[in-house]
This record gives sequence, C-alpha cells and structure tokens, in this order.
Amino acid sequence: MIDLHLIGIGTGNPDHLTRAAERAMQAADLILLPRKRADTTDLLDLRQTLCAAVAMPDTRVALFDLPERDEAAPYGAAVAAWHDAIAKAWADAIATHLPQGGRLALLVWGDPSLYDSSLRIAQRLGDDGMAMRVSVVPGITSLQALTAAHAIPLNTVGAPVTITTGRRLRERGWPEGVDTVAVMLDGGCAFETIDPVGITIWWGAYLGMAQQALAAGPLGEVGPTLRARRAALRATHGWIMDTYLLRRSPA
Amino acid sequence: MIDLHLIGIGTGNPDHLTRAAERAMQAADLILLPRKRADTTDLLDLRQTLCAAVAMPDTRVALFDLPERDEAAPYGAAVAAWHDAIAKAWADAIATHLPQGGRLALLVWGDPSLYDSSLRIAQRLGDDGMAMRVSVVPGITSLQALTAAHAIPLNTVGAPVTITTGRRLRERGWPEGVDTVAVMLDGGCAFETIDPVGITIWWGAYLGMAQQALAAGPLGEVGPTLRARRAALRATHGWIMDTYLLRRSPA
Repeated sequence: MIDLHLIGIGTGNPDHLTRAAERAMQAADLILLPRKRADTTDLLDLRQTLCAAVAMPDTRVALFDLPERDEAAPYGAAVAAWHDAIAKAWADAIATHLPQGGRLALLVWGDPSLYDSSLRIAQRLGDDGMAMRVSVVPGITSLQALTAAHAIPLNTVGAPVTITTGRRLRERGWPEGVDTVAVMLDGGCAFETIDPVGITIWWGAYLGMAQQALAAGPLGEVGPTLRARRAALRATHGWIMDTYLLRRSPA
Repeated sequence: MIDLHLIGIGTGNPDHLTRAAERAMQAADLILLPRKRADTTDLLDLRQTLCAAVAMPDTRVALFDLPERDEAAPYGAAVAAWHDAIAKAWADAIATHLPQGGRLALLVWGDPSLYDSSLRIAQRLGDDGMAMRVSVVPGITSLQALTAAHAIPLNTVGAPVTITTGRRLRERGWPEGVDTVAVMLDGGCAFETIDPVGITIWWGAYLGMAQQALAAGPLGEVGPTLRARRAALRATHGWIMDTYLLRRSPA
C-alpha cells in the first residue's frame, strides 16, 4: 500500500511552506524529486534545499528522471502520453525505493489542484492496479504570490475571476463574462494578442524567490516591455516561470 | 507610520499557517482581531487560539467591534458603506492601541486576495491620509482546502476555471466559456438554480476544521440534500462557511 502525499510547497520560498506541508515531509518514508533537463537544475536545487531544511535526518530522498513532453505533437495527445510516461517513472521509482509500500511524498510547486498533473498521474497508477491512498496538502500558488507581491485583490467587489492558460487566451481571446483574468503557463506572451485598451496588467516572475521580478501598469505600456525582459531573465537564470493578472475597466 | 501586514491564515486549521504568516504574527507590535455578533464567537476564538499558539508572549492582541453590513440596502451601496465603517473602526483602534505607529497585523481568513475586503479598507485609510505601508502574506483559501479534502484538481487539463459568488451564479447563471466553476460566498444554495444535468458538485463546509463536512457526486443527487444539511450544521455550530466546485461534462 502506497500512502501518497502530494504536498504543495509554494513557489520556491521556504516561507511559503505550511505547517501541514512540513509535517507531511517529515512523516514521509521517501520523498521523490524529479530531475529535469540541465537548464532547470536550480529548481531541483530548491526542492533539495527544502528537503534539507525540513525533512528529518533519516527521511530518504530519491531522484527520478522526469520525462519530457513532446512539444511537436498535438497538445492533448502529447499531454496524455507525457502523463503515462511520468506514471511509469513513478512506478519504477516506487518499485526501486519503496517496494514494501509506505508513505511517499511528492513536492508540488504551488498547489496540487492548480495546473498540476500529479493527481491525474496518481489516478493512472491506481487505474493500473497499484494500491494507493492519495492525500493532498494545499500550498501557496504563484497566483497568490503574485497578488501578495503587488498587494492587490484578485477579484473586484463581488465579481468573478477566470483563471486560464496562455494557450487558451491566445486561441480564444478574452474570456466572456469577466473583467479579471489570471493567466498561467504562458511561455509565449499571449497578452500581446489582446487589445490593450482599458486593461491593466500585474506581472511577476520567480514569485517569492530572491530573483523575483515584478511589473504593473497599463497593458499598452507594460506589455511591450515584457517580451525582452522575459528573454533577458531567462538568459540570466536559465529558466523562467511567470504569471500575470489582467483587469479591464468594467464596460 | 503604520506598517500593515494582512496575513492570510487559511480556513481555521493552524496547520494551514505558513512560516511567513507565523513570522509576521510574531513580528507584530499589535494584532487586531474583529469581534462579530455573538453567534460567530468561535471564529473569534479560533483567531485567539492561533494568536496564543503562534504570537510572541509580548505581542499585544486587541479586539475591535466589526460593523455589520446592512443586508436591507442595495448590495453595492451597502458594501461601500460597510467598508467605510470598518475603515473607521480600524482607524479608531489604531489611534487607541498604536498611536505612535508600528507593525500592525490583521488575520484574514483564507487569502487576502480572494473575496476579502481588507486591501480595499486599507486603501481607504491611505486615501484618508494615514501614512501606511501594506504587505500581504498569502494564505490557503477555502477553495484550496476544498480541492485538497476531495483530492481533486481545480481545473481539467489546460482548461480554464471561473471563481464566482453565489449571488452571481444565481443572477447570471452558469458562466460562459468554462466547464468548471468554483462558488464562494453562497449563503443561499445558488446551485439549486442551475440545471443539474451532467454536472458534478464537490462541496465542503468548515474546511480544514475539526467539524469539516464534505459531499460530492452528481448535482442532481447531492444538490437536493444540501439545503437541509447546511441548516442542520448551522443549527449545531451557530454559523456555517462553505464553498463548492461545479464541473460539467464538456459539451
């Protein structure tokens, strides 16, 4: 029996950790950390730093190689194949490091509920017959780190908010029925495809980390500066993770 | 100068507190707690319990009477007047307890960014000429506690989510362009106004607390049970705070 704990760890700032997250890390028999391609090693380092700071001395930490998504394949099929491959990598790591079962912890950036695949991957292992119980420890999302850094509310009074992806914003345009849109997973500056009139952007990268970068203002003024800024930050740090909030004046 | 820290404390489970929240509470010169009407005293008790567990022995904790919103007045005007009254209550408490300025902490349920007025009230004090710097410490929202308790993702793969209020769902119906809707601030079972065909609900009350109550399943089956269940829980505990997620099968 695998007692799987998906632990939201926030955006890389150890101060984001909740007491529940710390306890779940300390109680784990094994913490599995993904190893990605070389240019994101400082994300692995961050997780390892968290483990060293929080886990008990005898907690085992093991690495597994995280498969990459096929960027060339159609999105839906590529994601499904990618999740299959990750499920196999988890199963192999469990067979190697926790063959008798026990408490397994995975550290998830942000919160396991928001644009993260861990719950779906765990579901695959269950579907494949692995005896598994899944628990989730919520964590601070990059969206919360963004609004905190700018000291702004996510919503206006009584009004709705749509959380979406860069891909979706690019393909479908501004979502209907809302004046506030939070955009995640945007590697391609999808805000450039939106008519900027009347829209304010609050942007942040490396939120909560030492290298945190922020920008805010009218989309027509701030938007055009962000492509170059993102490229420069990516060149400096080797990777970038950013998110932003768009708000338009009510019609 | 008032150095105001709005600290997200999660949904009442001390294990939701982040390290940053604990440190901000410990560093405060004064923690101000709102005193509401009698039937919600255990919410005040929860905050006082958190303070006792976390704050330093010499941190001062003071209570102020929280004005009530005029339920009879039109919503927009009532909210504005209510925020004005709360701003005055804060100003009075600051004049009494922190006349020379200093670090003031307010404990906010969930996260200060999401359906919370503290940022807007702080803005009013600034507009009225109080020298104030505002910092936000993010906290776990009831929505995150809900998805964690049910071990479900908020979004489906690559798809958007709209967060809205019970009032809005009732007045405008299902939001356009999304298959997942998170509903907050619903004191009136607005899910009853939605055609339940093809919709699943995940509901939770007192999330993260000892009295946590959960329900999940087809809206057509679970929905009709919730009005009576909410009433019974409210009768037992004197108050109720709940939230839910609705997801429809893609068209």
